[in-house]
Amino acid sequence: MEKLTVIKVGGKIVEEEATLKALLSDFSKVEGRKVLVHGGGRSATAMATRLGIESQMIDGRRVTDAETLKVVTMVYAGLVNKNIVASLQALGVNALGLTGADLGYMLSAKRPIKNGIDYGFVGDVKSVNSDLLAKLIADGVVPILAPLTHDGKGSMLNTNADTIAGEAAKALSKHFDVTLVYCFEKKGVLRDENDDDSVISEINEADFKKYVADGTIQGGMIPKLENAFAAISAGVSKVVITKADQLGKVGGTTIVR
Amino acid sequence: MEKLTVIKVGGKIVEEEATLKALLSDFSKVEGRKVLVHGGGRSATAMATRLGIESQMIDGRRVTDAETLKVVTMVYAGLVNKNIVASLQALGVNALGLTGADLGYMLSAKRPIKNGIDYGFVGDVKSVNSDLLAKLIADGVVPILAPLTHDGKGSMLNTNADTIAGEAAKALSKHFDVTLVYCFEKKGVLRDENDDDSVISEINEADFKKYVADGTIQGGMIPKLENAFAAISAGVSKVVITKADQLGKVGGTTIVR
Repeated sequence: MEKLTVIKVGGKIVEEEATLKALLSDFSKVEGRKVLVHGGGRSATAMATRLGIESQMIDGRRVTDAETLKVVTMVYAGLVNKNIVASLQALGVNALGLTGADLGYMLSAKRPIKNGIDYGFVGDVKSVNSDLLAKLIADGVVPILAPLTHDGKGSMLNTNADTIAGEAAKALSKHFDVTLVYCFEKKGVLRDENDDDSVISEINEADFKKYVADGTIQGGMIPKLENAFAAISAGVSKVVITKADQLGKVGGTTIVR
Repeated sequence: MEKLTVIKVGGKIVEEEATLKALLSDFSKVEGRKVLVHGGGRSATAMATRLGIESQMIDGRRVTDAETLKVVTMVYAGLVNKNIVASLQALGVNALGLTGADLGYMLSAKRPIKNGIDYGFVGDVKSVNSDLLAKLIADGVVPILAPLTHDGKGSMLNTNADTIAGEAAKALSKHFDVTLVYCFEKKGVLRDENDDDSVISEINEADFKKYVADGTIQGGMIPKLENAFAAISAGVSKVVITKADQLGKVGGTTIVR
Protein backbone atom coordinates (compact mmCIF):
# COMPACT_ATOMS: atom_id res chain seq x y z
CA MET A 1 0.00 0.00 0.00
CA GLU A 2 1.18 3.48 -0.83
CA LYS A 3 2.06 5.76 2.10
CA LEU A 4 -0.13 8.75 2.95
CA THR A 5 0.52 11.40 5.59
CA VAL A 6 -2.48 13.22 7.09
CA ILE A 7 -1.27 16.34 8.89
CA LYS A 8 -3.42 18.42 11.20
CA VAL A 9 -2.34 21.92 12.09
CA GLY A 10 -4.32 24.33 14.17
CA GLY A 11 -3.99 27.28 16.40
CA LYS A 12 -2.02 30.42 15.74
CA ILE A 13 0.27 28.65 13.25
CA VAL A 14 -2.25 28.74 10.39
CA GLU A 15 -3.56 32.17 11.25
CA GLU A 16 -0.44 34.32 11.25
CA GLU A 17 1.20 35.13 7.91
CA ALA A 18 4.81 34.38 8.94
CA THR A 19 4.23 31.06 10.71
CA LEU A 20 1.76 29.93 8.05
CA LYS A 21 4.29 30.66 5.33
CA ALA A 22 6.97 28.59 7.09
CA LEU A 23 4.49 25.78 7.75
CA LEU A 24 3.32 25.60 4.14
CA SER A 25 6.89 25.64 2.89
CA ASP A 26 7.65 22.66 5.19
CA PHE A 27 4.40 20.94 4.18
CA SER A 28 5.19 21.35 0.48
CA LYS A 29 8.43 19.40 1.09
CA VAL A 30 6.76 16.45 2.84
CA GLU A 31 7.31 13.57 0.45
CA GLY A 32 4.62 11.36 -1.00
CA ARG A 33 0.84 11.55 -0.82
CA LYS A 34 -0.49 13.96 1.79
CA VAL A 35 -3.55 15.68 3.24
CA LEU A 36 -3.64 18.86 5.35
CA VAL A 37 -6.35 19.51 7.94
CA HIS A 38 -6.53 23.02 9.37
CA GLY A 39 -8.31 24.89 12.13
CA GLY A 40 -9.02 28.59 12.26
CA GLY A 41 -10.70 29.25 15.60
CA ARG A 42 -8.86 32.46 16.38
CA SER A 43 -9.78 33.99 13.03
CA ALA A 44 -13.40 32.92 13.53
CA THR A 45 -13.50 34.52 16.97
CA ALA A 46 -11.93 37.71 15.62
CA MET A 47 -14.41 37.85 12.72
CA ALA A 48 -17.36 37.16 15.04
CA THR A 49 -16.20 40.03 17.28
CA ARG A 50 -15.96 42.40 14.30
CA LEU A 51 -19.52 41.40 13.36
CA GLY A 52 -20.78 41.92 16.91
CA ILE A 53 -21.43 38.21 17.44
CA GLU A 54 -20.47 36.86 20.84
CA SER A 55 -18.32 33.70 20.85
CA GLN A 56 -19.37 31.23 23.51
CA MET A 57 -17.10 28.28 24.29
CA ILE A 58 -17.87 25.23 26.45
CA ASP A 59 -14.85 23.04 27.30
CA GLY A 60 -12.93 24.58 24.42
CA ARG A 61 -15.72 23.82 21.92
CA ARG A 62 -17.51 26.63 20.15
CA VAL A 63 -21.25 26.97 20.63
CA THR A 64 -22.43 27.45 17.06
CA ASP A 65 -25.72 29.29 16.60
CA ALA A 66 -27.02 30.15 13.10
CA GLU A 67 -25.01 33.41 12.90
CA THR A 68 -21.85 31.72 14.18
CA LEU A 69 -22.27 28.94 11.62
CA LYS A 70 -22.18 31.59 8.89
CA VAL A 71 -19.00 33.05 10.41
CA VAL A 72 -17.16 29.72 10.67
CA THR A 73 -18.28 28.73 7.16
CA MET A 74 -16.91 32.01 5.80
CA VAL A 75 -13.70 31.92 7.79
CA TYR A 76 -12.81 28.22 7.63
CA ALA A 77 -13.99 27.34 4.09
CA GLY A 78 -13.34 30.80 2.63
CA LEU A 79 -10.61 32.87 4.22
CA VAL A 80 -8.33 30.30 5.88
CA ASN A 81 -8.82 27.44 3.42
CA LYS A 82 -8.39 29.45 0.21
CA ASN A 83 -5.39 31.33 1.57
CA ILE A 84 -3.74 27.94 2.20
CA VAL A 85 -4.83 26.52 -1.16
CA ALA A 86 -3.55 29.52 -3.16
CA SER A 87 -0.27 29.54 -1.21
CA LEU A 88 0.28 25.82 -1.80
CA GLN A 89 -0.49 26.15 -5.52
CA ALA A 90 2.27 28.77 -5.65
CA LEU A 91 4.59 26.17 -4.06
CA GLY A 92 3.72 23.60 -6.72
CA VAL A 93 1.31 21.58 -4.57
CA ASN A 94 -1.93 20.72 -6.36
CA ALA A 95 -4.15 21.66 -3.42
CA LEU A 96 -7.93 21.20 -3.33
CA GLY A 97 -9.88 22.78 -0.49
CA LEU A 98 -12.75 20.71 0.86
CA THR A 99 -15.45 20.78 3.50
CA GLY A 100 -17.34 17.61 4.35
CA ALA A 101 -20.12 18.75 1.99
CA ASP A 102 -17.78 18.82 -1.03
CA LEU A 103 -17.94 15.45 -2.78
CA GLY A 104 -20.14 14.57 0.23
CA TYR A 105 -17.01 13.14 1.75
CA MET A 106 -17.85 13.59 5.44
CA LEU A 107 -21.37 13.35 6.82
CA SER A 108 -22.21 14.29 10.37
CA ALA A 109 -25.23 14.63 12.65
CA LYS A 110 -26.09 17.72 14.66
CA ARG A 111 -25.00 17.04 18.22
CA PRO A 112 -28.05 16.39 20.41
CA ILE A 113 -28.67 18.56 23.46
CA LYS A 114 -27.10 16.77 26.43
CA ASN A 115 -27.18 17.73 30.11
CA GLY A 116 -28.83 20.96 29.03
CA ILE A 117 -25.89 21.92 26.79
CA ASP A 118 -26.83 22.82 23.22
CA TYR A 119 -23.77 23.23 21.01
CA GLY A 120 -25.98 24.33 18.12
CA PHE A 121 -24.74 23.61 14.60
CA VAL A 122 -21.94 21.29 15.65
CA GLY A 123 -21.59 17.97 13.85
CA ASP A 124 -20.53 14.57 15.16
CA VAL A 125 -19.12 12.55 12.27
CA LYS A 126 -21.32 9.69 11.10
CA SER A 127 -19.62 8.43 7.96
CA VAL A 128 -16.77 9.15 5.58
CA ASN A 129 -16.93 8.45 1.87
CA SER A 130 -13.25 8.17 1.03
CA ASP A 131 -13.36 6.47 -2.39
CA LEU A 132 -13.33 9.57 -4.57
CA LEU A 133 -10.97 11.32 -2.15
CA ALA A 134 -8.53 8.40 -2.42
CA LYS A 135 -8.78 8.50 -6.21
CA LEU A 136 -7.92 12.21 -6.24
CA ILE A 137 -4.99 11.67 -3.88
CA ALA A 138 -3.69 8.91 -6.12
CA ASP A 139 -3.97 11.41 -9.00
CA GLY A 140 -1.58 13.77 -7.16
CA VAL A 141 -4.19 16.05 -5.60
CA VAL A 142 -3.53 17.26 -2.04
CA PRO A 143 -6.81 17.75 -0.15
CA ILE A 144 -6.91 20.67 2.30
CA LEU A 145 -9.66 19.87 4.77
CA ALA A 146 -11.53 22.66 6.57
CA PRO A 147 -13.15 21.84 9.94
CA LEU A 148 -16.68 21.71 8.55
CA THR A 149 -19.00 18.84 7.69
CA HIS A 150 -22.61 18.66 6.46
CA ASP A 151 -25.74 16.94 7.72
CA GLY A 152 -26.98 15.60 4.37
CA LYS A 153 -30.09 17.75 4.76
CA GLY A 154 -28.61 20.96 3.40
CA SER A 155 -26.84 22.39 6.42
CA MET A 156 -23.14 22.80 7.11
CA LEU A 157 -21.99 21.79 10.59
CA ASN A 158 -19.01 22.96 12.62
CA THR A 159 -16.70 20.03 13.40
CA ASN A 160 -13.49 19.87 15.41
CA ALA A 161 -10.40 19.73 13.19
CA ASP A 162 -8.75 16.98 15.28
CA THR A 163 -11.86 14.87 14.70
CA ILE A 164 -11.84 15.58 10.95
CA ALA A 165 -8.18 14.54 10.79
CA GLY A 166 -8.81 11.34 12.76
CA GLU A 167 -11.90 10.33 10.77
CA ALA A 168 -10.27 11.11 7.41
CA ALA A 169 -7.15 9.17 8.39
CA LYS A 170 -9.22 6.15 9.49
CA ALA A 171 -11.30 6.11 6.30
CA LEU A 172 -8.27 6.58 4.05
CA SER A 173 -6.58 3.57 5.74
CA LYS A 174 -8.70 1.44 3.40
CA HIS A 175 -6.67 2.85 0.52
CA PHE A 176 -3.29 3.88 1.97
CA ASP A 177 -0.74 3.11 4.67
CA VAL A 178 -1.61 6.18 6.77
CA THR A 179 0.49 8.18 9.21
CA LEU A 180 -1.57 10.77 11.10
CA VAL A 181 0.38 13.77 12.39
CA TYR A 182 -1.05 16.20 14.95
CA CYS A 183 0.94 19.42 15.13
CA PHE A 184 0.57 21.49 18.25
CA GLU A 185 2.49 23.97 20.44
CA LYS A 186 4.87 21.48 22.10
CA LYS A 187 7.44 19.18 20.55
CA GLY A 188 5.42 16.13 21.56
CA VAL A 189 4.06 14.48 24.69
CA LEU A 190 6.34 15.75 27.45
CA ARG A 191 7.57 13.82 30.50
CA ASP A 192 7.92 17.19 32.25
CA GLU A 193 5.60 19.91 30.98
CA ASN A 194 8.16 22.58 31.88
CA ASP A 195 10.91 20.93 29.87
CA ASP A 196 10.34 21.19 26.15
CA ASP A 197 13.07 18.64 25.51
CA SER A 198 11.54 15.88 27.67
CA VAL A 199 9.62 14.43 24.72
CA ILE A 200 8.46 10.82 25.16
CA SER A 201 9.44 9.35 21.82
CA GLU A 202 7.03 6.41 21.75
CA ILE A 203 3.87 5.51 23.65
CA ASN A 204 1.75 2.38 23.48
CA GLU A 205 -1.60 1.93 25.18
CA ALA A 206 -0.14 0.37 28.34
CA ASP A 207 2.33 3.29 28.72
CA PHE A 208 -0.52 5.72 28.19
CA LYS A 209 -2.60 4.26 31.02
CA LYS A 210 0.43 4.35 33.32
CA TYR A 211 1.23 7.99 32.40
CA VAL A 212 -2.38 9.04 33.00
CA ALA A 213 -2.43 7.21 36.36
CA ASP A 214 0.77 8.87 37.58
CA GLY A 215 -0.24 12.31 36.31
CA THR A 216 2.49 12.66 33.65
CA ILE A 217 -0.20 13.00 30.96
CA GLN A 218 -3.15 15.21 31.84
CA GLY A 219 -5.66 17.79 30.59
CA GLY A 220 -6.20 18.26 26.86
CA MET A 221 -3.54 15.71 25.99
CA ILE A 222 -5.73 12.84 27.26
CA PRO A 223 -8.51 13.11 24.61
CA LYS A 224 -5.82 13.75 21.95
CA LEU A 225 -4.14 10.45 22.81
CA GLU A 226 -7.44 8.62 23.17
CA ASN A 227 -8.25 9.74 19.63
CA ALA A 228 -4.81 8.58 18.52
CA PHE A 229 -5.36 5.08 19.91
CA ALA A 230 -8.85 4.97 18.39
CA ALA A 231 -7.32 5.84 15.01
CA ILE A 232 -4.73 3.08 15.35
CA SER A 233 -7.40 0.55 16.32
CA ALA A 234 -9.31 1.59 13.19
CA GLY A 235 -6.43 0.94 10.79
CA VAL A 236 -4.14 3.98 10.90
CA SER A 237 -0.51 2.73 10.98
CA LYS A 238 0.83 5.32 13.37
CA VAL A 239 0.05 8.66 14.94
CA VAL A 240 2.69 11.31 15.56
CA ILE A 241 2.25 14.25 17.92
CA THR A 242 4.78 16.97 17.20
CA LYS A 243 5.42 20.68 16.84
CA ALA A 244 4.57 22.28 13.50
CA ASP A 245 8.13 23.48 12.93
CA GLN A 246 9.34 19.87 13.27
CA LEU A 247 7.30 18.79 10.23
CA GLY A 248 9.28 16.46 8.04
CA LYS A 249 11.96 16.05 10.73
CA VAL A 250 12.48 13.08 13.03
CA GLY A 251 10.98 13.84 16.42
CA GLY A 252 7.78 14.17 18.34
CA THR A 253 5.89 11.40 20.06
CA THR A 254 4.89 8.36 18.02
CA ILE A 255 1.80 6.51 19.19
CA VAL A 256 1.89 2.81 18.38
CA ARG A 257 -0.43 -0.09 19.03
CA MET B 1 -18.89 13.66 -27.24
CA GLU B 2 -20.93 13.65 -24.06
CA LYS B 3 -23.12 16.69 -23.42
CA LEU B 4 -22.29 19.13 -20.62
CA THR B 5 -24.34 22.12 -19.46
CA VAL B 6 -22.51 25.01 -17.78
CA ILE B 7 -25.05 27.21 -16.00
CA LYS B 8 -24.27 30.63 -14.60
CA VAL B 9 -26.62 32.17 -12.07
CA GLY B 10 -26.03 35.44 -10.34
CA GLY B 11 -27.80 38.26 -8.66
CA LYS B 12 -30.49 38.01 -6.05
CA ILE B 13 -31.47 34.50 -7.11
CA VAL B 14 -28.55 32.81 -5.35
CA GLU B 15 -28.66 35.10 -2.34
CA GLU B 16 -32.23 34.75 -1.11
CA GLU B 17 -33.26 31.51 0.58
CA ALA B 18 -36.55 31.00 -1.28
CA THR B 19 -35.32 31.70 -4.82
CA LEU B 20 -32.09 29.78 -4.23
CA LYS B 21 -34.05 26.74 -3.04
CA ALA B 22 -36.21 26.78 -6.18
CA LEU B 23 -33.16 27.29 -8.40
CA LEU B 24 -31.22 24.41 -6.86
CA SER B 25 -34.25 22.14 -7.12
CA ASP B 26 -34.48 23.00 -10.85
CA PHE B 27 -30.72 22.61 -11.26
CA SER B 28 -30.76 19.19 -9.58
CA LYS B 29 -33.22 18.05 -12.28
CA VAL B 30 -31.11 19.22 -15.24
CA GLU B 31 -30.13 16.00 -16.96
CA GLY B 32 -26.63 14.90 -17.76
CA ARG B 33 -23.26 16.35 -16.84
CA LYS B 34 -23.40 19.87 -15.45
CA VAL B 35 -21.49 22.72 -13.82
CA LEU B 36 -22.90 25.64 -11.80
CA VAL B 37 -21.21 29.04 -11.67
CA HIS B 38 -22.49 31.48 -9.08
CA GLY B 39 -22.08 35.13 -8.12
CA GLY B 40 -22.69 36.65 -4.73
CA GLY B 41 -22.09 40.37 -5.10
CA ARG B 42 -25.01 41.50 -2.96
CA SER B 43 -23.92 39.31 -0.05
CA ALA B 44 -20.35 40.61 -0.43
CA THR B 45 -21.55 44.21 -0.36
CA ALA B 46 -23.74 43.50 2.68
CA MET B 47 -20.87 41.80 4.51
CA ALA B 48 -18.45 44.61 3.62
CA THR B 49 -20.93 47.13 5.01
CA ARG B 50 -21.27 45.15 8.27
CA LEU B 51 -17.47 45.17 8.53
CA GLY B 52 -17.27 48.89 7.86
CA ILE B 53 -15.58 48.41 4.48
CA GLU B 54 -16.75 50.68 1.70
CA SER B 55 -17.72 48.97 -1.58
CA GLN B 56 -16.53 50.88 -4.61
CA MET B 57 -17.83 49.91 -8.04
CA ILE B 58 -16.60 51.11 -11.45
CA ASP B 59 -18.82 50.16 -14.41
CA GLY B 60 -20.46 47.47 -12.31
CA ARG B 61 -17.11 45.93 -11.36
CA ARG B 62 -15.99 45.82 -7.74
CA VAL B 63 -12.77 47.59 -6.82
CA THR B 64 -11.05 44.96 -4.69
CA ASP B 65 -8.52 46.23 -2.15
CA ALA B 66 -6.85 43.82 0.30
CA GLU B 67 -9.70 44.01 2.83
CA THR B 68 -12.34 43.57 0.13
CA LEU B 69 -10.47 40.54 -1.24
CA LYS B 70 -10.84 38.93 2.20
CA VAL B 71 -14.56 39.71 2.18
CA VAL B 72 -15.21 38.27 -1.29
CA THR B 73 -13.09 35.19 -0.51
CA MET B 74 -15.13 34.58 2.65
CA VAL B 75 -18.48 35.28 1.07
CA TYR B 76 -18.04 33.65 -2.36
CA ALA B 77 -15.90 30.61 -1.46
CA GLY B 78 -17.31 30.20 2.05
CA LEU B 79 -20.83 31.38 2.65
CA VAL B 80 -22.45 31.29 -0.80
CA ASN B 81 -20.53 28.33 -2.25
CA LYS B 82 -20.87 25.99 0.73
CA ASN B 83 -24.55 26.82 1.20
CA ILE B 84 -25.10 25.76 -2.43
CA VAL B 85 -22.88 22.67 -2.12
CA ALA B 86 -24.60 21.43 1.07
CA SER B 87 -28.04 22.10 -0.42
CA LEU B 88 -27.21 20.20 -3.62
CA GLN B 89 -25.77 17.27 -1.68
CA ALA B 90 -29.15 17.08 0.11
CA LEU B 91 -30.77 16.90 -3.35
CA GLY B 92 -28.54 14.00 -4.39
CA VAL B 93 -26.14 16.06 -6.51
CA ASN B 94 -22.47 15.25 -5.85
CA ALA B 95 -21.41 18.90 -5.71
CA LEU B 96 -17.82 20.08 -5.32
CA GLY B 97 -17.17 23.75 -4.60
CA LEU B 98 -14.15 25.23 -6.35
CA THR B 99 -12.28 28.48 -6.74
CA GLY B 100 -9.68 28.84 -9.47
CA ALA B 101 -6.99 28.02 -6.91
CA ASP B 102 -8.50 24.59 -6.15
CA LEU B 103 -6.85 22.02 -8.42
CA GLY B 104 -5.21 25.12 -9.91
CA TYR B 105 -7.97 24.99 -12.48
CA MET B 106 -8.14 28.70 -13.39
CA LEU B 107 -5.14 31.01 -13.37
CA SER B 108 -5.45 34.74 -13.77
CA ALA B 109 -3.31 37.86 -13.69
CA LYS B 110 -3.97 40.91 -11.58
CA ARG B 111 -5.53 43.50 -13.84
CA PRO B 112 -3.02 46.26 -14.63
CA ILE B 113 -3.85 49.87 -13.81
CA LYS B 114 -5.35 51.41 -16.93
CA ASN B 115 -6.40 55.03 -17.54
CA GLY B 116 -5.70 55.64 -13.85
CA ILE B 117 -8.21 52.98 -12.78
CA ASP B 118 -6.85 50.42 -10.31
CA TYR B 119 -9.31 47.57 -9.74
CA GLY B 120 -6.99 46.08 -7.12
CA PHE B 121 -7.12 42.31 -6.62
CA VAL B 122 -9.17 41.60 -9.73
CA GLY B 123 -8.00 38.81 -12.02
CA ASP B 124 -8.14 38.54 -15.80
CA VAL B 125 -8.16 34.86 -16.76
CA LYS B 126 -4.94 33.63 -18.34
CA SER B 127 -5.38 29.87 -18.60
CA VAL B 128 -7.71 27.06 -17.64
CA ASN B 129 -6.52 23.58 -16.74
CA SER B 130 -9.63 21.54 -17.46
CA ASP B 131 -8.21 17.99 -17.58
CA LEU B 132 -8.76 17.02 -13.94
CA LEU B 133 -12.03 18.96 -13.89
CA ALA B 134 -13.26 17.00 -16.92
CA LYS B 135 -12.24 13.72 -15.26
CA LEU B 136 -14.22 14.61 -12.12
CA ILE B 137 -17.25 15.58 -14.20
CA ALA B 138 -17.06 12.27 -16.06
CA ASP B 139 -16.99 10.60 -12.60
CA GLY B 140 -20.35 12.20 -11.78
CA VAL B 141 -19.05 15.19 -9.82
CA VAL B 142 -20.84 18.52 -10.31
CA PRO B 143 -18.41 21.45 -9.89
CA ILE B 144 -19.83 24.57 -8.25
CA LEU B 145 -17.59 27.43 -9.34
CA ALA B 146 -17.17 30.52 -7.16
CA PRO B 147 -16.16 33.79 -8.89
CA LEU B 148 -12.56 33.66 -7.66
CA THR B 149 -9.29 32.75 -9.36
CA HIS B 150 -5.67 32.78 -8.23
CA ASP B 151 -2.51 34.38 -9.57
CA GLY B 152 -0.20 31.38 -9.14
CA LYS B 153 1.88 33.44 -6.69
CA GLY B 154 -0.23 32.76 -3.63
CA SER B 155 -2.99 35.32 -3.95
CA MET B 156 -6.66 34.84 -4.69
CA LEU B 157 -8.17 37.25 -7.22
CA ASN B 158 -11.73 38.44 -7.66
CA THR B 159 -13.07 37.45 -11.09
CA ASN B 160 -16.41 38.14 -12.74
CA ALA B 161 -18.73 35.10 -12.66
CA ASP B 162 -19.79 35.55 -16.32
CA THR B 163 -16.11 35.37 -17.27
CA ILE B 164 -15.54 32.26 -15.14
CA ALA B 165 -18.52 30.59 -16.83
CA GLY B 166 -17.34 31.53 -20.31
CA GLU B 167 -13.72 30.46 -19.73
CA ALA B 168 -14.74 27.18 -18.05
CA ALA B 169 -17.18 26.41 -20.88
CA LYS B 170 -14.55 27.10 -23.54
CA ALA B 171 -11.91 24.94 -21.84
CA LEU B 172 -14.35 22.09 -21.19
CA SER B 173 -15.28 22.08 -24.90
CA LYS B 174 -12.11 20.02 -25.40
CA HIS B 175 -13.80 17.23 -23.43
CA PHE B 176 -17.56 17.75 -23.85
CA ASP B 177 -20.26 19.06 -26.17
CA VAL B 178 -20.93 22.20 -24.12
CA THR B 179 -24.05 24.32 -23.79
CA LEU B 180 -23.44 27.50 -21.79
CA VAL B 181 -26.50 28.97 -20.07
CA TYR B 182 -26.56 32.49 -18.61
CA CYS B 183 -29.47 33.03 -16.24
CA PHE B 184 -30.52 36.59 -15.57
CA GLU B 185 -33.58 38.67 -14.66
CA LYS B 186 -35.31 38.59 -18.07
CA LYS B 187 -36.58 35.62 -20.06
CA GLY B 188 -33.95 36.21 -22.74
CA VAL B 189 -32.87 38.91 -25.16
CA LEU B 190 -36.00 41.02 -25.66
CA ARG B 191 -37.18 42.69 -28.85
CA ASP B 192 -39.00 45.22 -26.63
CA GLU B 193 -37.48 45.74 -23.20
CA ASN B 194 -40.92 46.56 -21.75
CA ASP B 195 -42.45 43.31 -23.01
CA ASP B 196 -41.18 40.29 -21.14
CA ASP B 197 -42.68 38.00 -23.76
CA SER B 198 -40.87 39.53 -26.74
CA VAL B 199 -37.96 37.09 -26.43
CA ILE B 200 -35.82 36.72 -29.55
CA SER B 201 -35.49 32.93 -29.73
CA GLU B 202 -32.31 32.76 -31.80
CA ILE B 203 -29.53 35.20 -32.69
CA ASN B 204 -26.53 34.75 -34.94
CA GLU B 205 -23.69 37.23 -35.27
CA ALA B 206 -25.22 39.03 -38.25
CA ASP B 207 -28.54 39.50 -36.36
CA PHE B 208 -26.59 40.75 -33.36
CA LYS B 209 -24.84 43.48 -35.34
CA LYS B 210 -28.16 44.54 -36.86
CA TYR B 211 -29.89 44.65 -33.45
CA VAL B 212 -27.05 46.71 -31.95
CA ALA B 213 -27.17 49.11 -34.92
CA ASP B 214 -30.94 49.64 -34.65
CA GLY B 215 -30.83 49.97 -30.84
CA THR B 216 -32.85 46.81 -30.04
CA ILE B 217 -29.89 45.46 -28.09
CA GLN B 218 -28.09 47.90 -25.82
CA GLY B 219 -26.36 48.43 -22.48
CA GLY B 220 -25.17 45.45 -20.45
CA MET B 221 -26.61 42.98 -22.96
CA ILE B 222 -23.94 43.92 -25.53
CA PRO B 223 -20.88 42.59 -23.61
CA LYS B 224 -22.95 39.54 -22.55
CA LEU B 225 -23.61 38.68 -26.20
CA GLU B 226 -20.06 39.50 -27.25
CA ASN B 227 -18.90 36.98 -24.64
CA ALA B 228 -21.42 34.48 -25.98
CA PHE B 229 -20.09 34.79 -29.53
CA ALA B 230 -16.50 34.55 -28.26
CA ALA B 231 -17.43 31.31 -26.46
CA ILE B 232 -18.99 29.87 -29.61
CA SER B 233 -15.93 30.81 -31.66
CA ALA B 234 -13.81 28.98 -29.07
CA GLY B 235 -15.69 25.69 -29.32
CA VAL B 236 -18.81 26.01 -27.16
CA SER B 237 -21.75 24.48 -29.10
CA LYS B 238 -24.36 27.01 -28.07
CA VAL B 239 -25.08 29.71 -25.54
CA VAL B 240 -28.53 30.25 -24.03
CA ILE B 241 -29.61 33.42 -22.24
CA THR B 242 -32.67 32.81 -20.10
CA LYS B 243 -34.38 33.45 -16.78
CA ALA B 244 -33.39 31.29 -13.83
CA ASP B 245 -36.92 29.98 -13.32
CA GLN B 246 -36.92 28.74 -16.92
CA LEU B 247 -34.01 26.37 -16.25
CA GLY B 248 -34.59 23.02 -17.88
CA LYS B 249 -37.51 24.41 -19.90
CA VAL B 250 -37.53 25.32 -23.58
CA GLY B 251 -37.15 29.08 -23.93
CA GLY B 252 -34.74 31.93 -23.71
CA THR B 253 -32.50 33.21 -26.45
CA THR B 254 -30.13 30.77 -28.12
CA ILE B 255 -26.95 32.23 -29.55
CA VAL B 256 -25.66 30.31 -32.53
CA ARG B 257 -22.74 30.69 -34.87
